[in-house]
Amino acid sequence: MAVGKESKHAMQSGRMMQSYVFLSPGVTSLETKRIPTPGPLEALVKVELTSISANDLNIVRGVFPVTSGLTLGHEAVGVIEELGELVSEYEVGQRVLVSATSSCGQCSPCLSGNGAHCRGMLGGWRLGRTTDGAQAEFLRVPYAEVNLTPLPDSISSEAALLLPETASIGFAAAERGGVELGDNVAVFGQGAVGLCATLGAKLRGAAQIIVVDKLSSRLDLASKFGATTGILSGPSLVKQILKLTRGAGVDVAIEAHGEPRTFESAMKVIRPAGTVSCIGVFTSALTIAEQSFNSGLGNHTVVNTLCPGGKARMERLIRLVESKRIDLAPLVTHRLPFNEIASAYEMLMEGQEDVVKIVLQVSEP
Amino acid sequence: MAVGKESKHAMQSGRMMQSYVFLSPGVTSLETKRIPTPGPLEALVKVELTSISANDLNIVRGVFPVTSGLTLGHEAVGVIEELGELVSEYEVGQRVLVSATSSCGQCSPCLSGNGAHCRGMLGGWRLGRTTDGAQAEFLRVPYAEVNLTPLPDSISSEAALLLPETASIGFAAAERGGVELGDNVAVFGQGAVGLCATLGAKLRGAAQIIVVDKLSSRLDLASKFGATTGILSGPSLVKQILKLTRGAGVDVAIEAHGEPRTFESAMKVIRPAGTVSCIGVFTSALTIAEQSFNSGLGNHTVVNTLCPGGKARMERLIRLVESKRIDLAPLVTHRLPFNEIASAYEMLMEGQEDVVKIVLQVSEP
Amino acid sequence: MAVGKESKHAMQSGRMMQSYVFLSPGVTSLETKRIPTPGPLEALVKVELTSISANDLNIVRGVFPVTSGLTLGHEAVGVIEELGELVSEYEVGQRVLVSATSSCGQCSPCLSGNGAHCRGMLGGWRLGRTTDGAQAEFLRVPYAEVNLTPLPDSISSEAALLLPETASIGFAAAERGGVELGDNVAVFGQGAVGLCATLGAKLRGAAQIIVVDKLSSRLDLASKFGATTGILSGPSLVKQILKLTRGAGVDVAIEAHGEPRTFESAMKVIRPAGTVSCIGVFTSALTIAEQSFNSGLGNHTVVNTLCPGGKARMERLIRLVESKRIDLAPLVTHRLPFNEIASAYEMLMEGQEDVVKIVLQVSEP
Amino acid sequence: MAVGKESKHAMQSGRMMQSYVFLSPGVTSLETKRIPTPGPLEALVKVELTSISANDLNIVRGVFPVTSGLTLGHEAVGVIEELGELVSEYEVGQRVLVSATSSCGQCSPCLSGNGAHCRGMLGGWRLGRTTDGAQAEFLRVPYAEVNLTPLPDSISSEAALLLPETASIGFAAAERGGVELGDNVAVFGQGAVGLCATLGAKLRGAAQIIVVDKLSSRLDLASKFGATTGILSGPSLVKQILKLTRGAGVDVAIEAHGEPRTFESAMKVIRPAGTVSCIGVFTSALTIAEQSFNSGLGNHTVVNTLCPGGKARMERLIRLVESKRIDLAPLVTHRLPFNEIASAYEMLMEGQEDVVKIVLQVSEP
Repeated sequence: MAVGKESKHAMQSGRMMQSYVFLSPGVTSLETKRIPTPGPLEALVKVELTSISANDLNIVRGVFPVTSGLTLGHEAVGVIEELGELVSEYEVGQRVLVSATSSCGQCSPCLSGNGAHCRGMLGGWRLGRTTDGAQAEFLRVPYAEVNLTPLPDSISSEAALLLPETASIGFAAAERGGVELGDNVAVFGQGAVGLCATLGAKLRGAAQIIVVDKLSSRLDLASKFGATTGILSGPSLVKQILKLTRGAGVDVAIEAHGEPRTFESAMKVIRPAGTVSCIGVFTSALTIAEQSFNSGLGNHTVVNTLCPGGKARMERLIRLVESKRIDLAPLVTHRLPFNEIASAYEMLMEGQEDVVKIVLQVSEP
Repeated sequence: MAVGKESKHAMQSGRMMQSYVFLSPGVTSLETKRIPTPGPLEALVKVELTSISANDLNIVRGVFPVTSGLTLGHEAVGVIEELGELVSEYEVGQRVLVSATSSCGQCSPCLSGNGAHCRGMLGGWRLGRTTDGAQAEFLRVPYAEVNLTPLPDSISSEAALLLPETASIGFAAAERGGVELGDNVAVFGQGAVGLCATLGAKLRGAAQIIVVDKLSSRLDLASKFGATTGILSGPSLVKQILKLTRGAGVDVAIEAHGEPRTFESAMKVIRPAGTVSCIGVFTSALTIAEQSFNSGLGNHTVVNTLCPGGKARMERLIRLVESKRIDLAPLVTHRLPFNEIASAYEMLMEGQEDVVKIVLQVSEP
Repeated sequence: MAVGKESKHAMQSGRMMQSYVFLSPGVTSLETKRIPTPGPLEALVKVELTSISANDLNIVRGVFPVTSGLTLGHEAVGVIEELGELVSEYEVGQRVLVSATSSCGQCSPCLSGNGAHCRGMLGGWRLGRTTDGAQAEFLRVPYAEVNLTPLPDSISSEAALLLPETASIGFAAAERGGVELGDNVAVFGQGAVGLCATLGAKLRGAAQIIVVDKLSSRLDLASKFGATTGILSGPSLVKQILKLTRGAGVDVAIEAHGEPRTFESAMKVIRPAGTVSCIGVFTSALTIAEQSFNSGLGNHTVVNTLCPGGKARMERLIRLVESKRIDLAPLVTHRLPFNEIASAYEMLMEGQEDVVKIVLQVSEP
Repeated sequence: MAVGKESKHAMQSGRMMQSYVFLSPGVTSLETKRIPTPGPLEALVKVELTSISANDLNIVRGVFPVTSGLTLGHEAVGVIEELGELVSEYEVGQRVLVSATSSCGQCSPCLSGNGAHCRGMLGGWRLGRTTDGAQAEFLRVPYAEVNLTPLPDSISSEAALLLPETASIGFAAAERGGVELGDNVAVFGQGAVGLCATLGAKLRGAAQIIVVDKLSSRLDLASKFGATTGILSGPSLVKQILKLTRGAGVDVAIEAHGEPRTFESAMKVIRPAGTVSCIGVFTSALTIAEQSFNSGLGNHTVVNTLCPGGKARMERLIRLVESKRIDLAPLVTHRLPFNEIASAYEMLMEGQEDVVKIVLQVSEP
């Protein structure tokens, strides 16, 4: 068998694929690369669908520096093309969901429930950041046993595509924020991840969910995800949120925008002993006013959460789709073939109001 | 002022009211009693709506012994008629919801979040158990500051009536069971409280919610509260639940039936390291098979929960109604005037299939 | 009885006591005041011992503005002199510990476990801040049922005096920081409260406890409270802490100093997904560097904690003394008679190196 | 390299070692076996020290059936002799501690923090149960990346030997029981694991720790691990525990004896809303009296815990030894050379009063 595998590798070494690569800040290109060969603990996935996240834009903008020539992307549904010799859980031909972050399952952080801080060489957020990513015809998945989940037939590939990153981090904002039954919650920022934070607050049993965005179209969309009130960004938003909670403040505020000013608003709308849960990617420093943390005004909690990944997490999220508890379809505003990926990046870079998530079809199912 | 109050008391001492009292096991009667006078920390509430719970039936059946002559009932919405001199938070004339269990807020259990074990003389489940209850025209509420909540105009009295007991204990089953986003949950027993446990599991973000009852009409009703699959009680139910979870077992099983046999089924359908959350009132001993708790098969958690009460709890539940997250209307299958309360008890005692909760109108709003 | 009580009030109205009062920033005085009369839910305590906390100094310095003429102080052990007519739990003549913060036990924050944010008129930190405090011969205790605890004979008054504030807040730093068995912990600031945070980390099962202070005498003292390593404040402290944890960072860092710069050091020494737990009183804004909260570096938690008070908390702390788990004696560096309280304040204001806590004897036991 | 490795394997295949094997209930033997060859994810450890646990006795007694010829034991400190080709974290020659239970780190239970329920073929409690164990000269460790931890030079092999099982499960009893600062705790059974539960309760900040055993020598020993009171088993023990807690009951009771009768006593001594935490291995069914779980008396939690294993757990426990927070030396009552292992089993089987743990020296350090 080892022989057969090797000769298949040999053939693949000759086979080529299309990949969307970062060249330098602002410069990307759809290029031809050799199809990779999975190591003993890895898998090769033939990508069916992929997408583009806000962090991909940060890479292209040069905010997160990466090596020139790297294939971008960390969202994928596809079919297992080849398995490393020590991967026993899956079968070639299975349709699978790929974890956006990669955990090895063997380092102390992984074993303590902090897979996002995996110390494995390819652990944490690696796909499309330190190793070739998912915006390609084929994707090599590290620690495949941990980072793949088979999809049941009842779930379409598109219904699953946004689970490992967009939904996982959005829901985590509500989970780590400790939203309890009957809590009032405010969510700042209704991008794709913020909309999932809104849905996460609903799933955890929030009462009022007050959402804030600068686009009224996003506030409308948010109502499909559980928002009870939408507020346009503006100088009176703190006052409006306090009024909606009869002066008490919300129990939990979620920052899904990544702006220090938004963080400061979040600190102002929580009740005494309330929580601010951050999932935005901050690129400048935050300030906590002294009165927020002082005697008589404090007892606050501030948490920041990275995307929880791995198979156990994905299984949970798949169950929510299977049981029809969640439907992420309204997030997908556009569908394009893979060879139009450059236009997709452009639409997102321009921040077109009607664009939330773009699904890219890489291969036929 | 004290004089005015006393003379009002004097007048009231003379005024009489209708009360539904326990006389002896199986014997109850609608009788005339003196309207009580509130002490300095108490309130007198003119009852608008009341209801009957499974525990009231247990009292009438003689399972929970009480003093002859006691007014029954612990569910009430009404209007404040009079306030003790040290109650400052409310006003006469306010429409209020009354906590089913009474907490003093001043003993160590109350201050540690265990109000259900209040050591105050009238703490814990007292109304209709050790002091005159809510099935009467007027109700004296102990520790009124803690055990009343004003109702916002947007909420009808009927929409609030079932919050302090039926919803509170039902939701608590899911909360104390630690239901997480994407958990699979089984709920045994779909009486009023069991239906609220189903809704509680949904509110906490469960994926599959598998409900079990001996009546198919209850399984139908359960689908309105979030059940994804209904199973009729029967010898194969454990097997069916395991099959629905692909052999894995549910993360949390809720026992809302109060039968040792049901508890044993619950222990059989949870996954390794799963939880059984009990809210049923057991009247005989439970057995835990040795293999459930043994090496290689165990790591289980079993919790039992009494009804969480008090103002802070009621405020949360009211918020869920206000935000239209929950609607308990389908629980109310019958409405009767207060003078037909004896028939209402009869309908419940007979266990008529179509009877879930009966709302009794004691006075006009 | 009411008559006897009233006539006693009448007499007391005539009786006078010594009180240490705030007049204006920097100006205080030992003055004569009328002994107060307790309301129906209050108690009058004859103070035996009192002390001075960092927050008292903040008041005297004018950082926390209070009314001129207010009696200072919120730490007291004494004997019940008189009880309000609705206080039934205690007896005149009992030796009691007084809660530093006052909870009513009847508002929603109190009933939700947030007594520090009590909405009662005299709730939260009130003694010596909005109502006359404990640095006097007699102290009127609001909501006496909640805010007193009898002391068992086996515990000396001095052994109990520092429990409600110094120990309670110090231990809370470790509790709210979520210190787990085997965690490595750093504690910044080894004043009285910081020393108790060190002890709290030990009580929660920390492995290494690395303490930081600018005084080497405090580092020595800290070793009696469980510190495993002491580090003098200085530019290399972050590097030293990282080295002691083999580069990994501590699981929990406690800020007990109240300085933004210390907070920033605390953020730098925690591991990925670590916690900074603050109990210092910040008087200027905090900054969180963007890399602390960013992808790949974050998942942090920041909590701020106010002093947990009330009877249930005090009972727990008393049990720790009774069981000889803790001994706060090394905190008491000086003992003075009450009439030397001005000197005591002076010693603390000057920040004398050998002064930690000063016990003031107000009356004979 | 693969060639060199293979030839070394070939040589080893020829090398033999001494192993203590189970033959049939009651029949064991020190036999000669081939030294195993580690697979790509495994390690071969040359055992220096091993020990015998209560579960080994259960196997020998036939309570836990295993295959005839299996090498017993799951406790080991040793030196890495050989590493599988995909194990990169360690080096040959390192002194390591071996996890008593084996986790793969790649299945959903492992990734959800339930390593004790690892679904890997060799996961959960496997050593000396379904695969050859640690009572041998060499031990093949599955999923070596996860199940080994290097020992720092400052820690003796003996000081570490009892961490992965005896201490881990004992401490877990206190952790899963939710022991809080100032809790009163009762521990039933002061065998090696029960003594560690006592120490665990101390490490978590318990106030009173009341221990129960039938041997007064164990009660004496328990005082070295933090017990504040010892009670000899007997009909009055429930009454005695209630008296020691002034009638209130303990917050947490730990069952470390494995007897249904002891479990029932534990249920009787907890306060309302208290917890019973079980680590005993029950071999017959448990009964929970109806009043324990009933309205007005309940709100209890019952948890059962299996031994938490893996590298992250071991690292924490090693830190506690390094920081001198714990010293398990008093548990080791006897030391024997490996070839006297049969006598060691005999001493334990006979239940000699002075025997707690026996350390077996398999090779020189």
